Amino acid sequence: MTDVIENPAEQKLAAATAWWKTSIVDIKPGIINFNGYPIEQLIGRIGFVEMVWHMLRGELPTPWQARLLEAAMVAAVDHGPQAPSISIARMTSTCGVGINNAMASGINALGDVHGGAGQQCLQLYDRLLAEGGAEDPAKVTESLRTILSESRLIPGFGHRFHPVDPRSKPLMELIRQAAAEGAVAGRHLKVALQVEESLKEIKGKLIPMNIDGATAAIYGELGFDGEEARGLFILSRSVGILAHAREQMRQGGRIKGPMPTSIPYTYTGKPRRDLER
Amino acid sequence: MTDVIENPAEQKLAAATAWWKTSIVDIKPGIINFNGYPIEQLIGRIGFVEMVWHMLRGELPTPWQARLLEAAMVAAVDHGPQAPSISIARMTSTCGVGINNAMASGINALGDVHGGAGQQCLQLYDRLLAEGGAEDPAKVTESLRTILSESRLIPGFGHRFHPVDPRSKPLMELIRQAAAEGAVAGRHLKVALQVEESLKEIKGKLIPMNIDGATAAIYGELGFDGEEARGLFILSRSVGILAHAREQMRQGGRIKGPMPTSIPYTYTGKPRRDLER
Amino acid sequence: MTDVIENPAEQKLAAATAWWKTSIVDIKPGIINFNGYPIEQLIGRIGFVEMVWHMLRGELPTPWQARLLEAAMVAAVDHGPQAPSISIARMTSTCGVGINNAMASGINALGDVHGGAGQQCLQLYDRLLAEGGAEDPAKVTESLRTILSESRLIPGFGHRFHPVDPRSKPLMELIRQAAAEGAVAGRHLKVALQVEESLKEIKGKLIPMNIDGATAAIYGELGFDGEEARGLFILSRSVGILAHAREQMRQGGRIKGPMPTSIPYTYTGKPRRDLER
Amino acid sequence: MTDVIENPAEQKLAAATAWWKTSIVDIKPGIINFNGYPIEQLIGRIGFVEMVWHMLRGELPTPWQARLLEAAMVAAVDHGPQAPSISIARMTSTCGVGINNAMASGINALGDVHGGAGQQCLQLYDRLLAEGGAEDPAKVTESLRTILSESRLIPGFGHRFHPVDPRSKPLMELIRQAAAEGAVAGRHLKVALQVEESLKEIKGKLIPMNIDGATAAIYGELGFDGEEARGLFILSRSVGILAHAREQMRQGGRIKGPMPTSIPYTYTGKPRRDLER
Repeated sequence: MTDVIENPAEQKLAAATAWWKTSIVDIKPGIINFNGYPIEQLIGRIGFVEMVWHMLRGELPTPWQARLLEAAMVAAVDHGPQAPSISIARMTSTCGVGINNAMASGINALGDVHGGAGQQCLQLYDRLLAEGGAEDPAKVTESLRTILSESRLIPGFGHRFHPVDPRSKPLMELIRQAAAEGAVAGRHLKVALQVEESLKEIKGKLIPMNIDGATAAIYGELGFDGEEARGLFILSRSVGILAHAREQMRQGGRIKGPMPTSIPYTYTGKPRRDLER
Repeated sequence: MTDVIENPAEQKLAAATAWWKTSIVDIKPGIINFNGYPIEQLIGRIGFVEMVWHMLRGELPTPWQARLLEAAMVAAVDHGPQAPSISIARMTSTCGVGINNAMASGINALGDVHGGAGQQCLQLYDRLLAEGGAEDPAKVTESLRTILSESRLIPGFGHRFHPVDPRSKPLMELIRQAAAEGAVAGRHLKVALQVEESLKEIKGKLIPMNIDGATAAIYGELGFDGEEARGLFILSRSVGILAHAREQMRQGGRIKGPMPTSIPYTYTGKPRRDLER
Repeated sequence: MTDVIENPAEQKLAAATAWWKTSIVDIKPGIINFNGYPIEQLIGRIGFVEMVWHMLRGELPTPWQARLLEAAMVAAVDHGPQAPSISIARMTSTCGVGINNAMASGINALGDVHGGAGQQCLQLYDRLLAEGGAEDPAKVTESLRTILSESRLIPGFGHRFHPVDPRSKPLMELIRQAAAEGAVAGRHLKVALQVEESLKEIKGKLIPMNIDGATAAIYGELGFDGEEARGLFILSRSVGILAHAREQMRQGGRIKGPMPTSIPYTYTGKPRRDLER
Repeated sequence: MTDVIENPAEQKLAAATAWWKTSIVDIKPGIINFNGYPIEQLIGRIGFVEMVWHMLRGELPTPWQARLLEAAMVAAVDHGPQAPSISIARMTSTCGVGINNAMASGINALGDVHGGAGQQCLQLYDRLLAEGGAEDPAKVTESLRTILSESRLIPGFGHRFHPVDPRSKPLMELIRQAAAEGAVAGRHLKVALQVEESLKEIKGKLIPMNIDGATAAIYGELGFDGEEARGLFILSRSVGILAHAREQMRQGGRIKGPMPTSIPYTYTGKPRRDLER
């Protein structure tokens, strides 16, 4: 026998209650349980990155899972004030708003182009793995050739500024260790290295893996999908966004433009004219 | 003899270069150093929360400093979908935007009222400490009486939903341990407990410390100011914002209103009228 | 003979100057010219909607162009507090932030799903016109059949809430008048009406054009593309966002959840469990 | 006899319904009435700026009210790509997000410092008027002396870039006309001019009224308060934000930093050091 709600007010209430549903947290007066665990058991006993994992996965990570996630999140915190997310947060923080607003504006800029390379790279790895790329290097090369025939760039490889991105090597080394100890499967590691190999073959020169290529390998090994990889990158970069916004607030300065007004911008429109009306 | 730049172009360039300055990160081709430390030495060797500390303070934390910060950041990740920041992130994530945009909108709402209690509470503790409150309980009671004569609430104490906030006790217990071991001074701990005592005296009943009162005590012991306490809370709550936005994206649902349309809102304006024109 | 900049400082300066370029506005001390027109000639002599047009097109609109744009922008200002953009702005405005922040959060939610129907509909009209749909009704029907085989909805037609959207008729009537007077070509008008006809034929019942279908017809007649149509919709809806945020600020209320806490949400995760660590 | 709701479900429903209330718009299936007026009567018959007024005030403006609001909103649309709101919108639009997100980030920066001068100036005028400043010039001078003893700037007067702001004169001229015809009271006009006079007396030189000083006079004459003045400025500046974001999207360019990387920023932290761990 099913529950039938006959009272119309109760039907509407039930609909309203069902409107918002979550498996993340159960909150009642005096109770805050995260997918079952009471918060008072988590505080002081699990690390912040373990909590990040639990919030997204509903279970706690193994030590190696936590260590890899920790490394990926340390690596991506900041890339200096010329990255748009950082400069936007710094500029916004001089405009007379709260630190939350300055941070929100920076994070808002972490879109497909500025914050999406890790996600796109993980989706590439997943595609190459689904095509059997972990076993067959030639398939990876073939797929990359197809992609390069339509696009100039492979997400996660090459860097406009760094000849070699100093963040890739220590991240890849960690996955290697974890795979050697059987803590992760090592399939994303394998395909990531193969992409670098294949690119070298296609381009005739090394296009070194960058931070996005390396963190995508980690996130893939850890079982996250592309969207989650983007989310985790955002959590990480938020640290830089906060630190820079805070620093700028302390430096003061009333309204920082993109450049000092001593350097003019280029006007390309019509010369001065009169309104005929 | 000082450097005098005589070439006007070089003067403008120097002004532009000085326009953006930071001590957080030094970036050159192949080099990313955080207040001196090369990123490749940090990855895999320091935890994410240690990196958060380093980004804000320029040095690494001691183990107890890291542990306290970790606990405070675990405690504040989420308070369910009825908190505006969370519900806004969930709603935004159904509107056809990126996860960064959903997160930004949630974070943007962490203003003085929704995200500011920890900051305000830390500023209160700092004021009470400056007035000598750590040594003189009567001064704390007196100051709170003055504040309560103008305001209904003391930030960090009492909760609209939880009779007792389950997050306070384990956080305070950690500070107690740290203070007992001489890892922190224990002055914010002392004044925080005194505020609870004084409030009980004034109100005639216990107004228990909530998460903001407890994390403010931690942030104070750790030497952060109110603005930084807010920033650290935002980093923590961003985890819940991400987890909920992600969950909502997976649940789907086209455009979630604040309530299902089966529940109407109240219209309080004029009845229908005709435009006389 | 080309200009060759030999001084390295001057080269960098020139590169910096060219980094930001615009044809919209030329600003020098005492001078603000919009694509040539001095601002002091525009103030008081052109209307706000004419200025909107000038900012996007670089020239002033004809009276009919201004009238159509005005009508489209009046039509879309608001659709009540259950639209996510509006409810987000109202909620954010109770969180202790500025009116700019509340507006930004509402506007941020006007993504592909919540704010994109007009853009998508205009892109549909443009595609149907490119396929010859203005002359050949059968082609429109055929294209819609193809689209409906992959998607459940045709943007701009049907409404989840209004059996007939009261905004469509007066908008379409205006285009009809403008076309009859030769002020616009009438091709988007024709294809929009044909879509309604074809949908009726396919579905066996009227799926009436909604506001997005009607404003897309206007924006198409006026020569705007989809992205601009979205931008103009955002300008229009910003009025409602402002009005509601303002009203909520005056109503007060500390932190408005999506629903009153008297209505619980549904928790779907694991029951309470103990951390085994 | 009052209505007593006895059914608990109905009580909760009533509470939920009352949670969101508005006098702005009444929406029912097929009906969209703005403070009484059916939308189908407004479309094509009132201008966009009249609609803006109606949304904030609940009634339609007189022709002079509409004309003054129109002028104030035309004047403030844009101040070039070096204003942070504009440059943030341009930068964000190259990061792979929607036009709504680029606009939101720009608008989010219109805080107290960047977007608040008009609001602050209107609040100053209102204070001076409340002190009797319309009748007694000496009182205005006295109050300004007090303010200047604590602050360096009077909002609405002087400009960092323009020796004379070309927008002030045509705006003030319009108020003068409106006051001469009895369409507005002219009190804000009077006090605004008196502030310029008093400042000249105090400083010994003309500190000319800027756009914020002139629009504040308009908004004051029209009966708006400071918060609304800020909101109207935001609506106006959103036009520039849209136009610049759109232009930047068309120009393309992958991720625009605040300055080209050819111009380095200044690093002020510690020189490279090794992690001792």
